[in-house]
Amino acid sequence: MSTEPTKILLTEDEMPRQWYNIQADLPVPLPPPVGLDGTPIGPDDLARVFPMNLIEQEMSTQRWIDIPEEILGILKLWRPSPLYRAHRLEAALGTPAKIYYKNEGVSPAGSHKPNTAVAQAWYNKQFGIKYLTTETGAGQWGSALAMSCKLVGIECKVFMVRISFDQKPFRKIMMKTWGADCIPSPSMETAVGRKILSEMPDTPGSLAIAISEAIEQAVEREDTRYALGSVLNHVMMHQTIIGLEAKKQLEKVGLYPDVVIGCAGGGSNFAGISFPFLCDKIHGKEVQVIATEPEACPTLTRGPYVYDSGDVAKMTPLLPMHSLGHGFIPPAIHAGGLRYHGMAPLVSHVRQLGLIEATALPQTECYQAALLFAHTEGFIPAPETSHAIAQTIREAKKAKEEGKEKVILMNWSGHGLMDLQGYDAYMSGKISDFPLPEEMLQRSLEALKDHPPTP
Amino acid sequence: MSTEPTKILLTEDEMPRQWYNIQADLPVPLPPPVGLDGTPIGPDDLARVFPMNLIEQEMSTQRWIDIPEEILGILKLWRPSPLYRAHRLEAALGTPAKIYYKNEGVSPAGSHKPNTAVAQAWYNKQFGIKYLTTETGAGQWGSALAMSCKLVGIECKVFMVRISFDQKPFRKIMMKTWGADCIPSPSMETAVGRKILSEMPDTPGSLAIAISEAIEQAVEREDTRYALGSVLNHVMMHQTIIGLEAKKQLEKVGLYPDVVIGCAGGGSNFAGISFPFLCDKIHGKEVQVIATEPEACPTLTRGPYVYDSGDVAKMTPLLPMHSLGHGFIPPAIHAGGLRYHGMAPLVSHVRQLGLIEATALPQTECYQAALLFAHTEGFIPAPETSHAIAQTIREAKKAKEEGKEKVILMNWSGHGLMDLQGYDAYMSGKISDFPLPEEMLQRSLEALKDHPPTP
Repeated sequence: MSTEPTKILLTEDEMPRQWYNIQADLPVPLPPPVGLDGTPIGPDDLARVFPMNLIEQEMSTQRWIDIPEEILGILKLWRPSPLYRAHRLEAALGTPAKIYYKNEGVSPAGSHKPNTAVAQAWYNKQFGIKYLTTETGAGQWGSALAMSCKLVGIECKVFMVRISFDQKPFRKIMMKTWGADCIPSPSMETAVGRKILSEMPDTPGSLAIAISEAIEQAVEREDTRYALGSVLNHVMMHQTIIGLEAKKQLEKVGLYPDVVIGCAGGGSNFAGISFPFLCDKIHGKEVQVIATEPEACPTLTRGPYVYDSGDVAKMTPLLPMHSLGHGFIPPAIHAGGLRYHGMAPLVSHVRQLGLIEATALPQTECYQAALLFAHTEGFIPAPETSHAIAQTIREAKKAKEEGKEKVILMNWSGHGLMDLQGYDAYMSGKISDFPLPEEMLQRSLEALKDHPPTP
Repeated sequence: MSTEPTKILLTEDEMPRQWYNIQADLPVPLPPPVGLDGTPIGPDDLARVFPMNLIEQEMSTQRWIDIPEEILGILKLWRPSPLYRAHRLEAALGTPAKIYYKNEGVSPAGSHKPNTAVAQAWYNKQFGIKYLTTETGAGQWGSALAMSCKLVGIECKVFMVRISFDQKPFRKIMMKTWGADCIPSPSMETAVGRKILSEMPDTPGSLAIAISEAIEQAVEREDTRYALGSVLNHVMMHQTIIGLEAKKQLEKVGLYPDVVIGCAGGGSNFAGISFPFLCDKIHGKEVQVIATEPEACPTLTRGPYVYDSGDVAKMTPLLPMHSLGHGFIPPAIHAGGLRYHGMAPLVSHVRQLGLIEATALPQTECYQAALLFAHTEGFIPAPETSHAIAQTIREAKKAKEEGKEKVILMNWSGHGLMDLQGYDAYMSGKISDFPLPEEMLQRSLEALKDHPPTP
């Protein structure tokens, strides 16, 4: 084993003081959000949903945006996060590759999500907002926002996808512990929830439904806004602190990655680790960047690039993105997270520009990779994170075949201590692969037929 | 708020290379373990239960014992652990005290337990052992040993107290994920388990029962030994890495603690943080050291100092310790962990010598303290840890009354993400205090009437 330390640390003084905004460097600008009639959406159209200071960030093309001191103060509770050299995983694989993983599981909520949750809660409070609504799937985002609202000092309400609400009782308690309301979606509290329940009383729910409910409640009250845990430009930007730190950490050992890997659901942890390196790539540096997603929810790899809405009730503007259709509900057999129908416009855009690659992985391979990780590095990964691990293992094996000492950087987006049922199902042989059937995809995409064409 | 960083970090190079053995500095030597007839127990009497290399550590009076490189290599997966300045908790309390907490929740298993689990697994493997058996209550220790056996490369079987086995399904999965067998205790697999089940078919189980089962299976096979997560001298020693690191970290900001606080069940996390400071105290330095325990299981504060066995079937030697009696089963209303009937002989001994103080706290105060901690510092503490937090808050309030800028050091022994039901019960008003009734204590102590007197 190498004598290089297991963890490369930064001091709090070395923490990035600015977020990186990739919109400043895009060779082709991001197409704007549009209404159902195809006309571009301006800041004022979003003002009932988000506070204006975040809308400005959403639209900004300024390359560097200062992180307010108060936000840094809270992020320091767990940041800078350690960059790990996966000595023991490398040894198990017998690979010449150097594998580095950025451990975002060290946050109190256990994932990368608080990086933007703290920022969003803080900007909302600055704008005079007293109450945030949001949605959550498995609960990573909901608990991150619950914690952040408590730390910042505003109230929080989380609509949780019903199947997760029922199957993950601990996530609810976690949110309650941080003072948030958590209710199952669809619920009887909103018009859209009531409509869906009357049509599909047994629905497991979906993120797109929960988003509709959260937005409906946000726009009803002057002191309330909505927060989204992924997809939007300012969310991607808040997460770039991950990649900015990782870059500094690799510099400390004199390295630059050959490959950067992140799993992708809505796109935020992938953007967080990769955008600072894409900045270099746009300016001529060579680096391979790979987004990995589940075969059962193959947004980037099989979803067309279209104008689609972020929620089922079309309360959001239409966003230019790879999408499986806003009505898409992943099959129940899929246990690996990353279930959102759309991919962040910025991630979709850099995919369109050929700056990144995308792969879709079967979930048994991901759980197998997660177990190997837990058995060598100790930490039990979130099911989402296991996709990045599986892709990293593929790359490390390729490096072995090619005899190349590649530097692989992976975003270890969170721990799996709140998601152990999936492991139990896998170890009990109850998990099988589910490549999305083409006809199921086509049926889901029919909902987009009246949407304006993507530029 | 002060400009001092939130976290004081050590590099891996600064990690302690030796454990501290307080037996070298005791003004009065620790009384030996004895048999039921009162004759001292020697190394050979323990050889069926533990490997000889750990028995040597158990009996050693050498002050410093080298930590093998391979053990350090595994500990580096999460060590050195960060020492936090609790800026936000201090602000909420309005105290002039400086509160520092050592965050042992950063380990993959989420608590301090792996510090000794890794060492025990490694020494057993060195001795040629292929299989470890153990017991666990809430599951912190069982998951720590499961992980450590996997990382070291031996097999592990965990007898889990039945009430926890039933109430904490995630802990089982965690152990299974790390490759261990986990079965509820009492079980039909052992003679002692079958006997107890025939007498008390509905028993919730206890640590003392689970220990008996684990030892029974360990002594049956040549390649199998037993591992204990607390109580024993070598366990206390392995945990001193916590206090040794904390001392170095406080030195970096030019401080020495006025008060050192740890919660105490079997005593290992308390010993881990405090023994390196007790070393200074024995040599003349002034420092207040407080062990805190639950009112419902008040071993140090109300249990007499006696020779008692570590398990219900008296398979262990008699140890000199504060004890509530080996048949003690805490009331079901108690949700805060720290349920073991005895206190580590070394912790009991330093209490007898007047080197430490002990307090017993009501559980509602502990949960209230835990919530304040989660609402200010973000991290959700283990119920066990909440006792240390509650005592720390008491000390910080006292410092405020006295107008003293005290330095308080607390061991934050683990996170509570696997123990959220207790929070739910507390927030739903289902938790009440339960000071142990005197007659219940006396009844439990009757089992000790034939034991030899403690010197």
